[in-house]
Amino acid sequence: MTEKSAHSHHISQQFNADLDDIKTRMLEMGGLVEKQVADATNAFMNLDTGLASDVKQGDNLVNSLEVAIDEECTIILARRHPAASDLRLVLSISKILSDLERMGDEASKVAESAIRLTELGGLPRSVLEIRHIGDHVSGMVRNALDAFARLDIDLALAVAEEDKAVDLEYGTAMRSLVTYMIEDPRTISSVLQVMWALRSLERVGDHARNIAEHVIYLVKGANVRHVDIDEMAATVQE
Amino acid sequence: MTEKSAHSHHISQQFNADLDDIKTRMLEMGGLVEKQVADATNAFMNLDTGLASDVKQGDNLVNSLEVAIDEECTIILARRHPAASDLRLVLSISKILSDLERMGDEASKVAESAIRLTELGGLPRSVLEIRHIGDHVSGMVRNALDAFARLDIDLALAVAEEDKAVDLEYGTAMRSLVTYMIEDPRTISSVLQVMWALRSLERVGDHARNIAEHVIYLVKGANVRHVDIDEMAATVQE
Repeated sequence: MTEKSAHSHHISQQFNADLDDIKTRMLEMGGLVEKQVADATNAFMNLDTGLASDVKQGDNLVNSLEVAIDEECTIILARRHPAASDLRLVLSISKILSDLERMGDEASKVAESAIRLTELGGLPRSVLEIRHIGDHVSGMVRNALDAFARLDIDLALAVAEEDKAVDLEYGTAMRSLVTYMIEDPRTISSVLQVMWALRSLERVGDHARNIAEHVIYLVKGANVRHVDIDEMAATVQE
Repeated sequence: MTEKSAHSHHISQQFNADLDDIKTRMLEMGGLVEKQVADATNAFMNLDTGLASDVKQGDNLVNSLEVAIDEECTIILARRHPAASDLRLVLSISKILSDLERMGDEASKVAESAIRLTELGGLPRSVLEIRHIGDHVSGMVRNALDAFARLDIDLALAVAEEDKAVDLEYGTAMRSLVTYMIEDPRTISSVLQVMWALRSLERVGDHARNIAEHVIYLVKGANVRHVDIDEMAATVQE
């Protein structure tokens, strides 16, 4: 190996190490966010205000990870001028960081609603919708991150399909909560907390879908934002 | 001028033209989003389902602008390898595009609530909160974009301060709506539509604050995400 090629070999090794590093750190942040969503769901189901406070506190870490890893992405862009698929990877990671940060915010809102619901004395009826949709969307977060780690576009498509299912479950849950409120208006304030929490969880599902879209973009080079699920499926199968 | 320097002069002229172009297009998209928010507010206040449908339809244009301008940002990064403040500018524009697109989604949700509220026969009481907060946040969108266009960090700080005011107004409005619901449970379904719309408008304010944060980042190089307003003010005054 000539001195010059050894040098560029070293540069490209360093570059790959940098890319691996932001990928790994982003996935670790994703694992934390997934846990935040699951913990918020549990805190809500069990009216566990201690766990809810932990989730709210934990959001600071999520926020600081977003800032730190995004800064690392900027440094890579400034120093290494990545091209083609490497550029797409760095930009996708930067955008996924935003989605993860917003999921963290939503988990924090669910935790806040859990605290308020506890203060209101809970609800006479159980709120299985939260358990159901909470489990569903935290599974979607995990799958979206796995799809990213393995560049698995079939799994990414499955996440987008799950998001449609969550939207339907959300609609059904909301209608049943409205009925419950109307039948027993004394529960209005408490049921509203359940509604806010459900809406936040539904938003987590939307962000998981966004991550899935980035995976398809990375692999196929095709932008599948704002397209319906059939068109997305056609892109994946192309 | 030598041939070589003429060439690099040409390149840098073209580069500046590219930067101006994405900036201009992003600001135009911002103007459209501001109009979407104002129209959605009017549609809600006047139960104008025609205007509400226009807003929902108009969201397709917002979405396609986001994709197109973001693609232009990626091309600039790939071809021109901007450094330092130019790199920050391109990355900020790319992120502001996401905020604008999400504001568009929120405007569309307000329009959807306007349609549902109309179907429910409206509300016996007027919903001045929507007018008030709707006007407030569409002004914030305008100011955030002006702050970006002029790199005016004082105006950016003012937008962040407004966001705090909107959050307070939102809290007050929500409490009054809960009281209203409890006093007259027949209005539950209608009042919920008002609540959803208010929540969307409040989110628009959050996104305007995000844009303001990008302006401060561009001018000061300091990241003011997730910091409180006093710390942000200190950064601006530094």
